Amino acid sequence: MDSIRVGIVGATGFAGAELARLIAQHPVFEAVALTAGAEAGTEIGKLYPALEHAYPKTTLVPHDDESLLSCDVVFTAVPHTAGMQHAQRLAEAGVSVVDLSADFRFSDKDRYESIYKTTHTAPELLEHAVYGQPETMRAELVRLAEEHAQGDAVVVGCAGCYVTASILAAAPAMHAGLAQEASPVIIDAISGVTGAGRKATAKTHFCSADESVEAYGLPHHRHAPEIAQAYARLHPRLDDGGLVHVIFTPHLAPLRRGLLSTVYIPLAKQTTTRDLHALYEKHYADEALVSVLPEGVWPKTASVEGTARAHVNVSVNEEEQVAVCMCAIDNLGKGASAQAVQCANIVCGLPENTGLELLACIP
Amino acid sequence: MDSIRVGIVGATGFAGAELARLIAQHPVFEAVALTAGAEAGTEIGKLYPALEHAYPKTTLVPHDDESLLSCDVVFTAVPHTAGMQHAQRLAEAGVSVVDLSADFRFSDKDRYESIYKTTHTAPELLEHAVYGQPETMRAELVRLAEEHAQGDAVVVGCAGCYVTASILAAAPAMHAGLAQEASPVIIDAISGVTGAGRKATAKTHFCSADESVEAYGLPHHRHAPEIAQAYARLHPRLDDGGLVHVIFTPHLAPLRRGLLSTVYIPLAKQTTTRDLHALYEKHYADEALVSVLPEGVWPKTASVEGTARAHVNVSVNEEEQVAVCMCAIDNLGKGASAQAVQCANIVCGLPENTGLELLACIP
Amino acid sequence: MDSIRVGIVGATGFAGAELARLIAQHPVFEAVALTAGAEAGTEIGKLYPALEHAYPKTTLVPHDDESLLSCDVVFTAVPHTAGMQHAQRLAEAGVSVVDLSADFRFSDKDRYESIYKTTHTAPELLEHAVYGQPETMRAELVRLAEEHAQGDAVVVGCAGCYVTASILAAAPAMHAGLAQEASPVIIDAISGVTGAGRKATAKTHFCSADESVEAYGLPHHRHAPEIAQAYARLHPRLDDGGLVHVIFTPHLAPLRRGLLSTVYIPLAKQTTTRDLHALYEKHYADEALVSVLPEGVWPKTASVEGTARAHVNVSVNEEEQVAVCMCAIDNLGKGASAQAVQCANIVCGLPENTGLELLACIP
Amino acid sequence: MDSIRVGIVGATGFAGAELARLIAQHPVFEAVALTAGAEAGTEIGKLYPALEHAYPKTTLVPHDDESLLSCDVVFTAVPHTAGMQHAQRLAEAGVSVVDLSADFRFSDKDRYESIYKTTHTAPELLEHAVYGQPETMRAELVRLAEEHAQGDAVVVGCAGCYVTASILAAAPAMHAGLAQEASPVIIDAISGVTGAGRKATAKTHFCSADESVEAYGLPHHRHAPEIAQAYARLHPRLDDGGLVHVIFTPHLAPLRRGLLSTVYIPLAKQTTTRDLHALYEKHYADEALVSVLPEGVWPKTASVEGTARAHVNVSVNEEEQVAVCMCAIDNLGKGASAQAVQCANIVCGLPENTGLELLACIP
Repeated sequence: MDSIRVGIVGATGFAGAELARLIAQHPVFEAVALTAGAEAGTEIGKLYPALEHAYPKTTLVPHDDESLLSCDVVFTAVPHTAGMQHAQRLAEAGVSVVDLSADFRFSDKDRYESIYKTTHTAPELLEHAVYGQPETMRAELVRLAEEHAQGDAVVVGCAGCYVTASILAAAPAMHAGLAQEASPVIIDAISGVTGAGRKATAKTHFCSADESVEAYGLPHHRHAPEIAQAYARLHPRLDDGGLVHVIFTPHLAPLRRGLLSTVYIPLAKQTTTRDLHALYEKHYADEALVSVLPEGVWPKTASVEGTARAHVNVSVNEEEQVAVCMCAIDNLGKGASAQAVQCANIVCGLPENTGLELLACIP
Repeated sequence: MDSIRVGIVGATGFAGAELARLIAQHPVFEAVALTAGAEAGTEIGKLYPALEHAYPKTTLVPHDDESLLSCDVVFTAVPHTAGMQHAQRLAEAGVSVVDLSADFRFSDKDRYESIYKTTHTAPELLEHAVYGQPETMRAELVRLAEEHAQGDAVVVGCAGCYVTASILAAAPAMHAGLAQEASPVIIDAISGVTGAGRKATAKTHFCSADESVEAYGLPHHRHAPEIAQAYARLHPRLDDGGLVHVIFTPHLAPLRRGLLSTVYIPLAKQTTTRDLHALYEKHYADEALVSVLPEGVWPKTASVEGTARAHVNVSVNEEEQVAVCMCAIDNLGKGASAQAVQCANIVCGLPENTGLELLACIP
Repeated sequence: MDSIRVGIVGATGFAGAELARLIAQHPVFEAVALTAGAEAGTEIGKLYPALEHAYPKTTLVPHDDESLLSCDVVFTAVPHTAGMQHAQRLAEAGVSVVDLSADFRFSDKDRYESIYKTTHTAPELLEHAVYGQPETMRAELVRLAEEHAQGDAVVVGCAGCYVTASILAAAPAMHAGLAQEASPVIIDAISGVTGAGRKATAKTHFCSADESVEAYGLPHHRHAPEIAQAYARLHPRLDDGGLVHVIFTPHLAPLRRGLLSTVYIPLAKQTTTRDLHALYEKHYADEALVSVLPEGVWPKTASVEGTARAHVNVSVNEEEQVAVCMCAIDNLGKGASAQAVQCANIVCGLPENTGLELLACIP
Repeated sequence: MDSIRVGIVGATGFAGAELARLIAQHPVFEAVALTAGAEAGTEIGKLYPALEHAYPKTTLVPHDDESLLSCDVVFTAVPHTAGMQHAQRLAEAGVSVVDLSADFRFSDKDRYESIYKTTHTAPELLEHAVYGQPETMRAELVRLAEEHAQGDAVVVGCAGCYVTASILAAAPAMHAGLAQEASPVIIDAISGVTGAGRKATAKTHFCSADESVEAYGLPHHRHAPEIAQAYARLHPRLDDGGLVHVIFTPHLAPLRRGLLSTVYIPLAKQTTTRDLHALYEKHYADEALVSVLPEGVWPKTASVEGTARAHVNVSVNEEEQVAVCMCAIDNLGKGASAQAVQCANIVCGLPENTGLELLACIP
């Protein structure tokens, strides 16, 4: 098969470097442009010796390098607001974009603007963008693939890491109508430190993060409304515009990669652990990148570290009729870059797990 | 002041070694007997070089060494069922006991037996034992002090680590009647690996625990009914025998010491973060070992590592009217050995923070 | 290309599980037998959820399962003494063996027996075995490939992790005759905890290994004579049987994978950092799996974690005329299983980096 | 005893915060001034909740706050060049200074200036300053105590962390004349990340330091000449001005606190492990803060974490006649702040372990 030319805008951030690693191992995608801000001009192998062999003597180019315009697909792994600027420029030049920022995650422009306190400068792209969470948005992504095949530039707004894990933990129960409408879903999640980004801060200093756990972002983390929107799409009894009530508490733990989301869903119908587990197994039976673990085996983030895979399991507190649903992912893998590659695979008409059958180290 | 003679049954486990460390720095308690099982006969400083200077040439004696009988108070830091056996023997000899096992945590013998699947062999001691959680059981512990002063042997059944953090996170809200009776309280907690004990297992292997988080003990962890009992004592509207509904999910994170409990309480009365924070500050104003952090500063386990202190804070999700209450402790400190020393201080008529004003390292 | 049938004896230990991971991603090798001791009969995916997708419903068979006899090559990842027993049985059945134990590392039977305090029960195999360190033993391994192609069973005795890193750090200097004969080479090495094996012990308990560094194995670690033998092969001025003098101190650090060897070589000829660096670059220019980093960039174990690659660099203390040579590897990768696969690739006539172009995560 | 008033210039850096912790637990010293740069004006308990209880409502003052002038002793925990500026100002005002920067570590002004590439602006203070390493400079420090008692301002230039460990590892052997003059002493040391300071950088980011080891500072780390100077003082056969040859390689490992120095000393006289161990035990028999571990028990940094203590042990490679000497310290404890307090204790006429009998947590 001919290779497909891809670019990475922001190849030196954690998500960007993970994209560079994944694309180097991808059988079809070929990275033809890796961009950086202040680090443009340096070789990526000097910055990250781990990539030197995969990208020999490859110099980082500026974010607006014209080599990007020759790409079939460009990944934009930059902060919000920068995402939409790059996407607009690229889309206008006919290049499809898989954006990892928050800029194309909300179908509703006003909600985006109220959460991110900024103006959305590419509202027409937003309108046609598809939320990049393949297990729940596959049909829409396949529709984009048709447009892309016809030469149209399309935009995918990839789901964030907390949201992806929280969706995958809850989707089968939500889809089956098991969630109460009135009671809030409580999401208690734990992330590794790569989730805080590459910037060196007091909080990401080794000596602050090591040997400690803490919560952050209370009471209104930006990801809560994104989760609420995703849950609402899954919920069979919510009218258009309705949202599932969500209380979300993220925690930071001393590991590099890994995210575990524990989702408490008050049940609308009497059920048991056994039945719910069977429902999950059936729901995810054909998914290439989601595994439902055997009953009683709880997801462990290390088992998916460095991979594109999600590990899911459930338990029902039968007295209280609350489902406790868990999903472990690598926040940079299925939670970011691997899911972006999965979306790009779909957009390019490839099997969606192409280049993504990675295995975690043991241990 | 004359020193008070204390013993530690099980001085080589994690809680026992922490007791040895705390007592070495205690101005009044003097350790006159440190016991061990298989390791009896060896010097504690050979086993733990960190203690060599504090306990020079001090040999571990067997669990039934008669030197224990000369003690004023003995700490029993052994697994459940062993706790009641040692306590009974010691109490019969007139020695007061502070037990760190689960054997004296339930006032109700039947509940203990159904949870721990064993017969309680010291039911008469259980009846008079007091639950060792000073911030919520102070009056009862002070009553024990009077009995102890008169020469009676008393028994304290220390609260476990998860329970202590979950109590301190929720107590002011519970006590103020803010918790709904019907909706379950959800407790999502994260513990360091010392919580799994000193035994070398596949799960406590460095290479399994490092760089990973996972849940365990679902759906019915033994600590859930202990928390339910503690919450019921605090709740003003529960009849005798009623329990607060609790869903409890413990998680393991890659750190040695530290426990963070995040408690979600559906509120019975409309309230705000500001008001709830003020209530917490007032409730804990006179506590020597509990600090309510400023609004918006979330407890971090490293800030209490190695100490007897609890850090607490709260947030109200005002749309959903759910309080999110947090408490960070050192699971071996305030969650076990330091709280045991605090109880012993009360029993011996000392200020309860005697020897416990320890400061965590930064960082 | 037709697949090549391989087996793994001891697939549940750390090296064995890493072999299983590597072979699952290898384009030619197909794992047809994964053996275990006590865990035989269980599915490997139950034991290691990370492997479930790669080995669906694959049951571990006993160490002597006859499926091994249908293999082209079997990897034996078992403790010493077990290695030679399995190798003998397999070789007698005509199966080539790549052994990861110490049993075929010494060309001299007596030296093996004096170091490992046991009788070598397969001396005739030992005589024909080749030391499995491709960068320094390539010609001999290629000779084995010819024998293997003719249907003969051959045996490779893979180099250990400390030895591999110490060889790669020093080989160009040794080979160029830069090392003094008289002064000892000092090797100070640091390993992650996987190096201590899968067995749960007091030392491998998370709470012992975490947040600490320590030395071990002094004064005479078993790997020192293996290093001395390897260095002697490289040294142009040592008579047959002569050994390079080596002082070796291994240290344990709190990480899972990674080994850094710092080798101090008193120089026989005046040289500079610049010249030595150039010599190293030239020496390793054609190696697929060894990278000499740019001057001044020191090897970092995380950059090779999970990979088959070695990162090397050198500095000369010009006043003292001592070369300080470093090599970072993944002790389970280039230090064990990936190097074993590299050896097997050569034995099977494949390009030696087949299936081994793995990239470390960033971060 | 009346309290002694002390100040800390630079109380928010790692060494400064450790001083604040130690002084809060010191029975005689009372902290009356804690200074900061940009963080002046904030409460230290807001910045470090771990200190809130010890320093309630205590506001950080600027570095030149006049409250410092009322102190008996001021600790200056600031970078080099800042150390001498503060020391000069304080000494002129009659305040004794214990400086933790490098500014008063070299008795020779020219050597300081050539290593730190700067002019020493307080040469007259330097001339009278004493090197702050009590085990090897006790007599000189006691002499300062006499001057301080007479009201003179004295200056102590505390030894750095690598140097302290390397001195304590080697001192008995050096002092006994066992080291060869000609062959270099090789020092291979491993430090935790607090050694890199509080500044958030790419290198101190959790995700860079975690799960990795690496060397740094080659070939000429600034601490090598400081070690060479210290060794020369100990060596009985070196003329004035002679230095011991030293090759020093520091490594970074993923822990917060802890430093292990492994020192290889080519021996001038034939000796054995047993004899050298006996020599070490005798040499350190009366030291309050140095423990020689039993033969075969290697120092582990966790055993001294958070303490003022050094753990030492030795092994002789008897074939090569090289002593392998080790010392583990907490780099912020005995390696910095606790040693500074030890020096201040001597200067103030207190027992030198006053307030320093701290015990490491297990685990």
